[in-house]
Formats: sequence, C-alpha cells, structure tokens
Amino acid sequence: MNRLPLDTATRIVAAATAKATEIGQPMNVAVVDDGGHLVAFARMDGAIKASIDISIRKARTSILMNLPTSALMDVCQPGGELYGLEQLSGGLVLFGGGLLLEVDGEVVGAIGVSAGSVEQDVSVAEAGVAAL
Amino acid sequence: MNRLPLDTATRIVAAATAKATEIGQPMNVAVVDDGGHLVAFARMDGAIKASIDISIRKARTSILMNLPTSALMDVCQPGGELYGLEQLSGGLVLFGGGLLLEVDGEVVGAIGVSAGSVEQDVSVAEAGVAAL
Amino acid sequence: MNRLPLDTATRIVAAATAKATEIGQPMNVAVVDDGGHLVAFARMDGAIKASIDISIRKARTSILMNLPTSALMDVCQPGGELYGLEQLSGGLVLFGGGLLLEVDGEVVGAIGVSAGSVEQDVSVAEAGVAAL
Amino acid sequence: MNRLPLDTATRIVAAATAKATEIGQPMNVAVVDDGGHLVAFARMDGAIKASIDISIRKARTSILMNLPTSALMDVCQPGGELYGLEQLSGGLVLFGGGLLLEVDGEVVGAIGVSAGSVEQDVSVAEAGVAAL
Repeated sequence: MNRLPLDTATRIVAAATAKATEIGQPMNVAVVDDGGHLVAFARMDGAIKASIDISIRKARTSILMNLPTSALMDVCQPGGELYGLEQLSGGLVLFGGGLLLEVDGEVVGAIGVSAGSVEQDVSVAEAGVAAL
Repeated sequence: MNRLPLDTATRIVAAATAKATEIGQPMNVAVVDDGGHLVAFARMDGAIKASIDISIRKARTSILMNLPTSALMDVCQPGGELYGLEQLSGGLVLFGGGLLLEVDGEVVGAIGVSAGSVEQDVSVAEAGVAAL
Repeated sequence: MNRLPLDTATRIVAAATAKATEIGQPMNVAVVDDGGHLVAFARMDGAIKASIDISIRKARTSILMNLPTSALMDVCQPGGELYGLEQLSGGLVLFGGGLLLEVDGEVVGAIGVSAGSVEQDVSVAEAGVAAL
Repeated sequence: MNRLPLDTATRIVAAATAKATEIGQPMNVAVVDDGGHLVAFARMDGAIKASIDISIRKARTSILMNLPTSALMDVCQPGGELYGLEQLSGGLVLFGGGLLLEVDGEVVGAIGVSAGSVEQDVSVAEAGVAAL
C-alpha cells in the first residue's frame, strides 16, 4: 500500500507553493515518504539554493525524529539535553519548517519548507499539511 | 534572469512522467539548473528509492561534464581513458538517463531519469527534453 | 553566455590580493560563479592552509544563501532562529569574508576571502568586489 | 622557506592556460604545494565544471603518490596490484594530467590539468611544468 502517492505529494507541494506565492516569499518545498525518501520537490523562482538541501533535510528530520523540526530547537541548545544532535543521523535541522504528514493518526510522510523566515517556512509547510 | 523557471521544469517533469506511464515503467525524474542545483523532482508510485539519488546525480553529471551521461560509459571502462572518473566530482553516473537541456544552443539545465532499464530511462529523459 | 569570465575573476583576485598586500595580511582569495563553482583562486605566501577551504566555502555560502556570509552570524547563535544552519548544504560559513558579485543587479558570482581577522577578510573581499 | 610562492604558481598556471588556448581546449588548471594544498587555480571560459575537482585532485594525487597520475592507470586495472586504489586517501585520479613540480630534484608541488582529452591534459600540464 502506497500511503503517499505522487498525486498526493504533488497536491501538497502545490498548496505550499500557492501559500508561498500569497505571502510573496519564494520557497523550496520537499515532500518525503515515511522512510524519509524524496517523493516530490519544487524550487520556486528566486528561492535560495541553500534551501534545496535544507528543505529536503527538514522533511527527513521530521521522519527520523517523528516530530516537527521546531521541537528540536530548545533541547539542542548549549546546556540542552540533546546538545549536538544536529550533526547525527546524517545531519538534522533544528529550526521550524519540517512537519509530519499524517493520515488517520498514522505518519505517511513529511513536508520540509525553506527559504524564508522560520515563521514563513512553518506557515507554508502548514498550508501543505492542510492539503493532505 | 532565470533561464530555467519552475514552470518550465515542471512541464519537463510532467512530459517525462507521461512517457513513463505510457511505457509502463515508474520513474524518478529530476531537473537541475545550469549550476547542477535541483529545481523540480518527482518519484512516481512504485519507482525504486535508489533512483532518487541516481536521477538527481545523472542530471548533475550532465551539467558537470556538459554531456549526456551515456557518453561516459565506454571511456570509463577498465582500460578506458577515464577509468575511475565515476568517483570524482562528488560521484558521477556513467550510464544513460542524464541529458542536457538547451535553449538556443545554450545549456540552461539538465534532466536525469532513473528506475527502469537504461534504454527506458533515456527514452523518458528524451520526452522531457522534447517538452522544453 | 558567460557572466563571470576568467578574465574578470582574475582581475577581482588581483584587486583583493593587492589590498591584502597593502594591509600586510596574506590571504586566500576564491571567486566562484553563480552556481557556486570555482573560477579562480590564489593563496598568498604565508596565508594559512585552513583558509583554502574556508575562502572557497565563503564564496559558495554567499551564492547558496544569496547574502554576505556575515549576515548569518547572529541568526545562527545559540537561541537564534537558524541555530545549526552551518552544517547544512554541505557546510556553510557564518562569519564575514564572503560577498556577492553583482552586475546590473544580477548575481554573477561571489568572492570569498580568508586568513586574517574577519574585519581584514571583509575589507579584502570588498576590494575584490570593487574591481568588478 | 616557501618553495612554491604564489608568483611561481601563477606563472605556471599562465603557461598552462596559454598552451590550452594554443590547442583550442579550455582547461581547469590547479597548482598545489608539496603538502597537496591549493596555491593557484583557474577555470578557463568553457571548461567543464566536473574538472574543477578533477584538476585539483590530479595535482593532489601526484603529491600523495609522488608520481605523475598516469603512472597509476595500469596498476589499478582489474587484476592489477593496486586495484581499488582510486577510492583511498580521499579519492585519487588514475589518468594523466597530474605532474610533479620539482626544483633541483626536490618536489615543491604539483600541477593538475583537466577538461580535455587525457593527451591534451598532459600536454597542457607539461607546459605548466616547463614554466617552473
């Protein structure tokens, strides 16, 4: 059973890029499956190139940690319980923009958005989640 | 000046996946810009996961070598002039499925297709190029 | 169309090394194109070897983030919005010395300078930019 | 004592690029010191991007192996004594285009040239050596 078909991933990316257009911030948008493997990706015109890797890695981080990426920020600060986590498992992202995609309480994948402020990234990722 | 806008890249991916559907072989399709940076990607339902990396890398190889990836196969064989090339420049792909995207004789990006036989990969990549 | 020919990159490196000579601090100077790929590089006599990688990576960071590298320092501090950014996209540099090269408002490449104090690095990079 | 000052490295690169211009094949030219660390680099207009890494690595391979890169080709073939060598020491190049730079019988650095046929690469590297 394919729990995150390309059709669905494409719809999620389209919803996210529509939101990005609405707020006037070009974005990189990545959708991965429940194994963290890329399904669909789009770099909007003008979105920074560093965020290609960051958006894909945000989605992958969400799958690997089973959390939104923003949940990692506090615990990874100096003095925090998971200080240094970001360099493990091939490189994790600590700031917001990665969200789980769930169907009936089951994780089917994740979305990662990057290129704007963290608030913008999260807002665009949420628009993607809402399209699921 | 954006020489390979997302709209164009998306159209190329759609043409490639349409061809893949026609021949009954699900594919990974990646489009990169003229610096080898990802613009659009789609993994069709059922396409193998190894080919996520392979398709992106095929497109990147075409940009870095300024050639279709198939041009590298013979010269990199044991005894060939460029034996060992595949492990350089971050890892290059030697078999077919990576093609340059050119506008008015100028390279604007590349497409990489992977998951089928090499012949199928090339055929699907050509369908993508034809949509440019 | 080559938007950053070797002639231009060489002139930029020469202007930067002239400035470095003037301030008495040997430097590594790297110029990359708009895809972050190296075009010209010089290590002045006495410049530290670690800065070979750092100068190239500063230029590449500017391209990937579309910013001077110095813009990243504050937001990547513990508690900052992009804490952990430096280990993404293949490794980014957070301190000054990487600057964009622009022609008619369009980014054509970037310069990275390293081996002195950050203030010296920035000053030498600015001399390179001024030669464009 | 600096046995390969930037002035010398720049002269070597200039001689190599002059030869490349003469034979009509744009090249990437790298000069490293006796530790394998980059001193000077130039990518001529039109030279392929994959050869940025390959030229630097050819020069570095010559230093690490204390040989011209072409000397590695036969012994690294399937059945050869050093089969698999190319993936060691961070990645070595087996084909020609990397040559040692020697002064009074002492190695002071190496040159690596890449982007043409191996014969062209070697010819351009030799022009660089001759300028020492």
